[in-house]
Amino acid sequence: MEKKKISQSVLKRLPGYLAYLKSVPDGSSAYISATALANALGMGEVQVRKDLAMVSDGGRPKIGYLRESLIDDIEQFLGYDNTTDAVLIGAGKLGQALMGYKGFEDYGLNILAAFDKNPQMDRTVEGKSVYHIDKLEAFCRKHKVLMGIITVPGEHAQEVADLLIAGGIKAIWNFAPTHLDVPRNILVQSENMAMSLAVLSVHLQAQIKEEKESGK
Amino acid sequence: MEKKKISQSVLKRLPGYLAYLKSVPDGSSAYISATALANALGMGEVQVRKDLAMVSDGGRPKIGYLRESLIDDIEQFLGYDNTTDAVLIGAGKLGQALMGYKGFEDYGLNILAAFDKNPQMDRTVEGKSVYHIDKLEAFCRKHKVLMGIITVPGEHAQEVADLLIAGGIKAIWNFAPTHLDVPRNILVQSENMAMSLAVLSVHLQAQIKEEKESGK
Repeated sequence: MEKKKISQSVLKRLPGYLAYLKSVPDGSSAYISATALANALGMGEVQVRKDLAMVSDGGRPKIGYLRESLIDDIEQFLGYDNTTDAVLIGAGKLGQALMGYKGFEDYGLNILAAFDKNPQMDRTVEGKSVYHIDKLEAFCRKHKVLMGIITVPGEHAQEVADLLIAGGIKAIWNFAPTHLDVPRNILVQSENMAMSLAVLSVHLQAQIKEEKESGK
Repeated sequence: MEKKKISQSVLKRLPGYLAYLKSVPDGSSAYISATALANALGMGEVQVRKDLAMVSDGGRPKIGYLRESLIDDIEQFLGYDNTTDAVLIGAGKLGQALMGYKGFEDYGLNILAAFDKNPQMDRTVEGKSVYHIDKLEAFCRKHKVLMGIITVPGEHAQEVADLLIAGGIKAIWNFAPTHLDVPRNILVQSENMAMSLAVLSVHLQAQIKEEKESGK
């Protein structure tokens, strides 16, 4: 279907639908309704109905969507059927974990190579080459890489971002706990574990306080 | 200071302030103003001023906050001065990366041990024991663990969550790409990489389309 403009909040809900649709056991009904999806995910029915209508025109009244077609429509919308080549910078523990993560293939993400300040540590990790960071910019240009994944410590993240942008990338997936200054046309998506830990920590403190007060 | 009720959105901004305050080089001024912080992080001045006033009463007109005191106030507010013991389930690549991540100490997070369905793989990882998942519930009860970190594949995440809750934990940090059904008093914080990838992927598609249309 013709692609509609879609808000970031709708966009962020699509992977949840996709994960659920893929988790439905083989042998279940081939059809799924917006109502069933809403109930399974604990979401509002109207919202789910609207979201799905944005990405698929396969919904039929009282029957719902053919599950496999809906999966295809969402994946196509998200561009998972096209391969995105990426480079990863910082081949430490987190970087290596991401380099070895097989699940990225489902999202069309292909990590071409990694770069590190300390390239003698390993020639290849998970079957992928680790080069010196000096080679990053030229590599990005040569292979027309559009995405960079930053897994270096916070204090080096900005310089890495600058190198990536000089190399022509258009999107950064940032795992460093740092704000990055980038031009307007570059998208930075930060995986902010510190934010999650703040929420978890404050919740636990409140729980502990409550238990003390209730005299447990 | 007396702890105020604070919204999730304020809470989520605090780690950003903290990271910046800690990144200011030694030898800079001992004071920092809300204005300077707002400028450095590209945020609104009024918002930063309000946020800081929620967690610290050390701000002085025209001078700002003593940086070290503000760091202490935010850390105390977030409970990083108390140690939170956690267990991690799923000692694969991502699990091992998290077990070895030294930065968690700064957040008061202490991973006591890991659990896996396949414990013969390693006796210890990063100096921490890896036990069979059968021992998880009893371990959590014995050590009064309040937080579980789930790094198993999506299809096993719900059963692991159920085990953790049976063991008495109150908060789950979920790295599995799955919605978890939990009782109301349990907080689930999901690290949703699939959501980030959706945003990145759609941005890149739009960029590619734009470049094609502009005839590059």
